[in-house]
Amino acid sequence: MSFDPNEHQQVNPPTRLLMGPGPINADPRVTRAMSAALVGQYDPWMTDLMNQTMELYRQVFVTENWATMLVDGTSRSAIEAAIVSLVEPGEKVLVPVMGRFGLLLQEIAERVGAEVVTIERDWGTVFTDEEIEAAIVEHRPKLLATVQGDTSTTMNQPLAGIGAICRRHGVLSYVDATASLGGNTFRMDEWQIDVATAGLQKCLAGPSGSAPISISERAAEVIRGRRHVEAGIADGSQGQGVRIASNYFDLGMVMDYWGPQRLNHHTEATSMLYAARECARLLAAEGMDAAVARHQLHGGAMAAGLSGLGLELFGDQANRMNNVIGVKIPEGVAGDELRASLLANYGIEIGTSFGPLAGVIWRVGVMGYNTRRDAVLTTLVALEAELRRFGFTTTPNAGVDAALAHYEENK
Amino acid sequence: MSFDPNEHQQVNPPTRLLMGPGPINADPRVTRAMSAALVGQYDPWMTDLMNQTMELYRQVFVTENWATMLVDGTSRSAIEAAIVSLVEPGEKVLVPVMGRFGLLLQEIAERVGAEVVTIERDWGTVFTDEEIEAAIVEHRPKLLATVQGDTSTTMNQPLAGIGAICRRHGVLSYVDATASLGGNTFRMDEWQIDVATAGLQKCLAGPSGSAPISISERAAEVIRGRRHVEAGIADGSQGQGVRIASNYFDLGMVMDYWGPQRLNHHTEATSMLYAARECARLLAAEGMDAAVARHQLHGGAMAAGLSGLGLELFGDQANRMNNVIGVKIPEGVAGDELRASLLANYGIEIGTSFGPLAGVIWRVGVMGYNTRRDAVLTTLVALEAELRRFGFTTTPNAGVDAALAHYEENK
Repeated sequence: MSFDPNEHQQVNPPTRLLMGPGPINADPRVTRAMSAALVGQYDPWMTDLMNQTMELYRQVFVTENWATMLVDGTSRSAIEAAIVSLVEPGEKVLVPVMGRFGLLLQEIAERVGAEVVTIERDWGTVFTDEEIEAAIVEHRPKLLATVQGDTSTTMNQPLAGIGAICRRHGVLSYVDATASLGGNTFRMDEWQIDVATAGLQKCLAGPSGSAPISISERAAEVIRGRRHVEAGIADGSQGQGVRIASNYFDLGMVMDYWGPQRLNHHTEATSMLYAARECARLLAAEGMDAAVARHQLHGGAMAAGLSGLGLELFGDQANRMNNVIGVKIPEGVAGDELRASLLANYGIEIGTSFGPLAGVIWRVGVMGYNTRRDAVLTTLVALEAELRRFGFTTTPNAGVDAALAHYEENK
Repeated sequence: MSFDPNEHQQVNPPTRLLMGPGPINADPRVTRAMSAALVGQYDPWMTDLMNQTMELYRQVFVTENWATMLVDGTSRSAIEAAIVSLVEPGEKVLVPVMGRFGLLLQEIAERVGAEVVTIERDWGTVFTDEEIEAAIVEHRPKLLATVQGDTSTTMNQPLAGIGAICRRHGVLSYVDATASLGGNTFRMDEWQIDVATAGLQKCLAGPSGSAPISISERAAEVIRGRRHVEAGIADGSQGQGVRIASNYFDLGMVMDYWGPQRLNHHTEATSMLYAARECARLLAAEGMDAAVARHQLHGGAMAAGLSGLGLELFGDQANRMNNVIGVKIPEGVAGDELRASLLANYGIEIGTSFGPLAGVIWRVGVMGYNTRRDAVLTTLVALEAELRRFGFTTTPNAGVDAALAHYEENK
């Protein structure tokens, strides 16, 4: 119970190269932005900055949706905000499950009282449009909730046809793009997606703690149909529709806060807003197609290098996320011990997975600030050395040679 | 829809002296801590840092509660987490309302399905122990949810006797200490409070975006009685009790994440964790009694100065928060225009209030990093100049002279 000045110094993190499924090393420009001075939340400068941030995220989501803003929490906070705001208790949600984050959508939707129907796929595969449409026809949900990039399996669900299917059947569509946005093509308006959410700690190159969200006018109308202004803020707050069972995650109130009404809701997490804005600014300056190509190049080099080491890639490679690669842990190699050794000896972090894939695959991320040749090659040489120490036979330099060949071919 | 390099530069905030009810200027040591490099969330260094942060917040809350941790969101995220985790739909919550933030507790509790009973007091006054006990006896709630410092009125609810009253009647107690913690005495264990929450953006001298929470063993048992592990994380997640109607705010899962189990929940908002730890480290090094005395000294100087200017202080001064002072806007003075002018001419922000006090009082905050003689005196001279410009007659130097006299008397 007493203050120990030896134990409790200023924060002084060890140097790490974070090549797991996220979080990854933040771009130093983003962390620098966070140290900027605070400004009051209704200061004209601040509301202008919020408007800029909305505009920048429209570019990131490739949308003209007015309601493109931030939820003040980690990526799953925006997932819950989307589902609790769209779905009333008892309404039906269809969730295609192909990995852990599909299960998370199921879990969140069940918690907020939805009737959840799932369709399932082996982990390491993705759904076809036909499978999803058939399930929609069979179950007639209000909402289709799906993950784009499920990092637990490294799969990237094709979505180009999904929004049109949903509109054809009068279904709303929600996409969790936390792990994929910025590193894999996502075109919100062209694909007719109603709501999408993300996080900063993956391809956006920032820290976790702010969750971008974009909401179509069609979905915004559904949410506004449940509008109840907060007691103490406005008079006559009787509202309409079934009240959203959360204050923090009521996207109607979040829209009134980001909108010209500027109704008080939470106290903006200003430093995280600065971070989120800088993440989007850097992506918008680069261009989204260029950002995706960058992830494809360096993720491809990592995949080539891991194959070159003699490791077997996991899952349907034609539908793999650009930014996370799964490899099977070789027989006889103690997967968690090797990961711990890689961290202790080289300061490099790679991940394991969840559920049926825990201890079965490693997951190597190449995203955001770490989409760099030095990050990819350093990881491969260190992994080669550790694999050899753990009894796995591999040709010297086979990993980096394959990665370098990939870079050469894709110059 | 295109990137505008002229508009979208690096974030470059104007210099502001934030003397409103919060957020206030963050301590530069806190914002510097946020720019530290990220580390993976299960890195041994990181889990050790999380344990340190728990220990530091035990000192801030003056508690030995093991479950002292952070909710990854703004201060109201922890309020909602506390209420949704403690209270099942249909259970009764008693909320004493003496300002806007009591209304917020009512609103949040209603949203999560509680049967809410309120007792009310004029804004600018506080409840007696007897009033609260009488309401408990009459309504027999499961939970008493109360605000300590309600910034909308500047009142500080006395709480020393409340926990014992609750225990005597078998009621759980929750305190929203967002605006008061660090600047006003709060003794969680001595006062027998079950759950308390805070934010960083007031007396803790940090940015909004992380919400410290402390949970007594008694309350933790109630929450664990509703334990359901997340699908995809553990097998046999049947759980028990009525499932908490939120994934993000399920404090049982948040405890499993901060505890030795380290069950995956959200991805830690690491930069905000760094900020939260630094806020607590600075307070623990100073000592909580010294921090309260600091707020009392500088808040007292501001109150004396505002009185010296000829303004009338608002509310029961014997129960005023140390860190926020309300003053009545003088008749004939356009309150919002004066505030805008103070901001434009001096970069100084003060607040208005909500509901029945909107346009009736100004609120001046003296907290966290701004508990400084220069911040208090600069605000008073600038306010004096603006008051004069807006037609209010006041003796030259009357504000700063009164504040300086207060400092002299309290040396």
